[in-house]
Amino acid sequence: MGGFFTGRTLAAIGDDLRAGRESSRELVAGALESVDPDLNAFATLDPGGAEAAARWADEELASGIDRGPLHGVPVAVKDIIDVAGLPTGMGSAHFAGHIAETDAVCVTRLRDAGAVIVGKTGTQEFAFGGTGDVSVNGPVRNPHDRNRMSGGSSSGSAVAVAAGMVPLALGTDTGGSVRIPSAFCGIAGFKPAHGVILTEGVFPLSRSLDHVGVLAGTAADCRIAYRTLTGPAEAVPSPVDEAAPYGRVAWIEPPAVDPEVERTVRALFPDAPAERIDFAGLRQVFIAIEFSEAHDVHAERVAEAPGLYQPATLGRLADAGRMPGWRLVRALRDRDRYAREVAALLDRYDLLAMPTMPITAPEIGATEVALGPLTALLVSLTSPWNVLGLPALTVPAGTAGGLPVGAQLVGRRGAESLLFDAAERLAGGQR
Amino acid sequence: MGGFFTGRTLAAIGDDLRAGRESSRELVAGALESVDPDLNAFATLDPGGAEAAARWADEELASGIDRGPLHGVPVAVKDIIDVAGLPTGMGSAHFAGHIAETDAVCVTRLRDAGAVIVGKTGTQEFAFGGTGDVSVNGPVRNPHDRNRMSGGSSSGSAVAVAAGMVPLALGTDTGGSVRIPSAFCGIAGFKPAHGVILTEGVFPLSRSLDHVGVLAGTAADCRIAYRTLTGPAEAVPSPVDEAAPYGRVAWIEPPAVDPEVERTVRALFPDAPAERIDFAGLRQVFIAIEFSEAHDVHAERVAEAPGLYQPATLGRLADAGRMPGWRLVRALRDRDRYAREVAALLDRYDLLAMPTMPITAPEIGATEVALGPLTALLVSLTSPWNVLGLPALTVPAGTAGGLPVGAQLVGRRGAESLLFDAAERLAGGQR
Repeated sequence: MGGFFTGRTLAAIGDDLRAGRESSRELVAGALESVDPDLNAFATLDPGGAEAAARWADEELASGIDRGPLHGVPVAVKDIIDVAGLPTGMGSAHFAGHIAETDAVCVTRLRDAGAVIVGKTGTQEFAFGGTGDVSVNGPVRNPHDRNRMSGGSSSGSAVAVAAGMVPLALGTDTGGSVRIPSAFCGIAGFKPAHGVILTEGVFPLSRSLDHVGVLAGTAADCRIAYRTLTGPAEAVPSPVDEAAPYGRVAWIEPPAVDPEVERTVRALFPDAPAERIDFAGLRQVFIAIEFSEAHDVHAERVAEAPGLYQPATLGRLADAGRMPGWRLVRALRDRDRYAREVAALLDRYDLLAMPTMPITAPEIGATEVALGPLTALLVSLTSPWNVLGLPALTVPAGTAGGLPVGAQLVGRRGAESLLFDAAERLAGGQR
Repeated sequence: MGGFFTGRTLAAIGDDLRAGRESSRELVAGALESVDPDLNAFATLDPGGAEAAARWADEELASGIDRGPLHGVPVAVKDIIDVAGLPTGMGSAHFAGHIAETDAVCVTRLRDAGAVIVGKTGTQEFAFGGTGDVSVNGPVRNPHDRNRMSGGSSSGSAVAVAAGMVPLALGTDTGGSVRIPSAFCGIAGFKPAHGVILTEGVFPLSRSLDHVGVLAGTAADCRIAYRTLTGPAEAVPSPVDEAAPYGRVAWIEPPAVDPEVERTVRALFPDAPAERIDFAGLRQVFIAIEFSEAHDVHAERVAEAPGLYQPATLGRLADAGRMPGWRLVRALRDRDRYAREVAALLDRYDLLAMPTMPITAPEIGATEVALGPLTALLVSLTSPWNVLGLPALTVPAGTAGGLPVGAQLVGRRGAESLLFDAAERLAGGQR
């Protein structure tokens, strides 16, 4: 499954570019040659646009203009994020032939940083679901086992990175949509704190839970991309104790988890004291907000052209439309309470660690696994951090049954450096 | 229908008290003697507590302690507002025998101002409705025609004032519950800007729409009570133009209104230019918020003891439980838009004038009138100002078909002085 960028970090790519060992145009060519149509990672490729942008990036570098670590780097963008002149297909027949007129804010940031957009990656229809196999474009396949789900909804972004087609991709994450496919595909994925990366130009799923995030091979590369999109880190990163190299870490006990997945991740934090959060209650909050806001976005389409949705999406939107308002009222009140509880936990700990996913990637088309119905399981450990708006990072943690397992790290808003520091130390210790 | 306080203002009562022509105990005796059980204004009378408080007020005045314009004045309190030691019945079998342990914040304010609480006034069950005839205590009757509704939900407070039992009462207003019965009963009623009078100790109906308000014979007395509950007015009231004695007034065209009611109120503002607001859209916002929040408050009671509700209340709560969350999401977004639109209108005008009610008081038990279903009509002109949180005042504007008609004035938050000034000029011009 190795592609042109497999095993290459942004730093190494940048060194090669700046040493003249490789041009941006060669990187783009490598990206395009690595695209494996069978994996179905891309909804749209833009060879012409990428070639032109790469040429420009090369000319700038040659003339001494250096835009930083993403300069000349091929990047893929999830197909619910507008890139001017390219289709934004949303994985849906509803948006067949729809061409974006302007760039999303996060895409403008990428371009300003010199990144080269090679195409739009496949998404779960309207980003509403975590499997990666519900789209007008068909399922996106897991490069570790093509009969298995990529995870979603940023399916293609994860697969494009995991298969070495690009070193970096943009995704979105409303309940886990960056972290789910990152974990299933064995790469790193970062969902920032809520609102840090603006969502203008991104098709909404649930406005108060939507986040733009980044997917890359390593936590270090997620950090570089995140800083490029948002500006420099806080001046004083939290000091880290030598005796506690990842900071003070709490192990958050998952409510339902494959034992082998749990062992794999727990082994990385053997000394972390176990703590609990109310996953079940947080799930109620998540679903009340997500369903209410998602149906608001789609109500007219559901009424007027239901047949254009994939059946699974239509079914979920119909469920979403039946979420009562009083449950949303209660959810918003409960969210405040959970935020206080988790803030208290994050007074005692620097980081919360847990598996990203309670399972490894199921087979394409599955709706039920041994642990229960898939829809709820997929977001069980990721969605609390959307509800609470906290930064959350998944990093490769090993394998279970031969399939990738991710470790999820959650930290305080504003303490992203600590999160990335810990993840990099973790990766160092592992290797 | 004259009672002890009919035609007496707070200022006149205060003069009599301070001149020694009358004692607070005599005022309390007059109040209690004026209570007409057939009107059903009171759920609870507290002769002993009132007598003791009046004696204390008299002793304070005699010893030179003067707490201001409410000192020694009998006041009635709506039966969803806690008064320590008295039942808070909510008009519901659910709260039979329930005694409040502490005073609501607004009641503490009343007591600090020397007011004498004579009892708790009948309320629509849980304040959820504007008719005044749905309560475990039976209908509250309109003193102008005992076969007609008082209006609600602050039914007893309005009737106690209108029939001269007390010169002042506290009510609450979520969609019009102070203004509806005030207009139907021919008195003045004021709903402050949202949040100005704290609702601690008041049983919630819909937290983001709930307001504590005051009911009295005149706008001037509402002003006195409001200032007593909230502190002094802004230092510099808006100047009023001699040529525009009520400020710049816009006439807001009601969407559906009894023509005689409209003529009666319009005659007070003959020169005001007509403007429109989106009453239908604002109603959608109101109902989405009120239903969602009300069902949240009642969900467990509805599930566990539905039979304790009056059938009409249970039916409305069941409807409320079916309000979809996505409509609430949309309503909250729409509210922001309407707030901007009305703010723009209030940049051009000082006051918005319209009828308080589109109709006069219907017969007890009615659910439908010539203009349509009663439930929606009752709050059609009042609830927008709960949604937008703006101060709104109803004042007697004459009669239609022999029944009282109210004029509603709405102003900017913080410009309550201008609202009261205009209402007092209006009352002066009328007399």
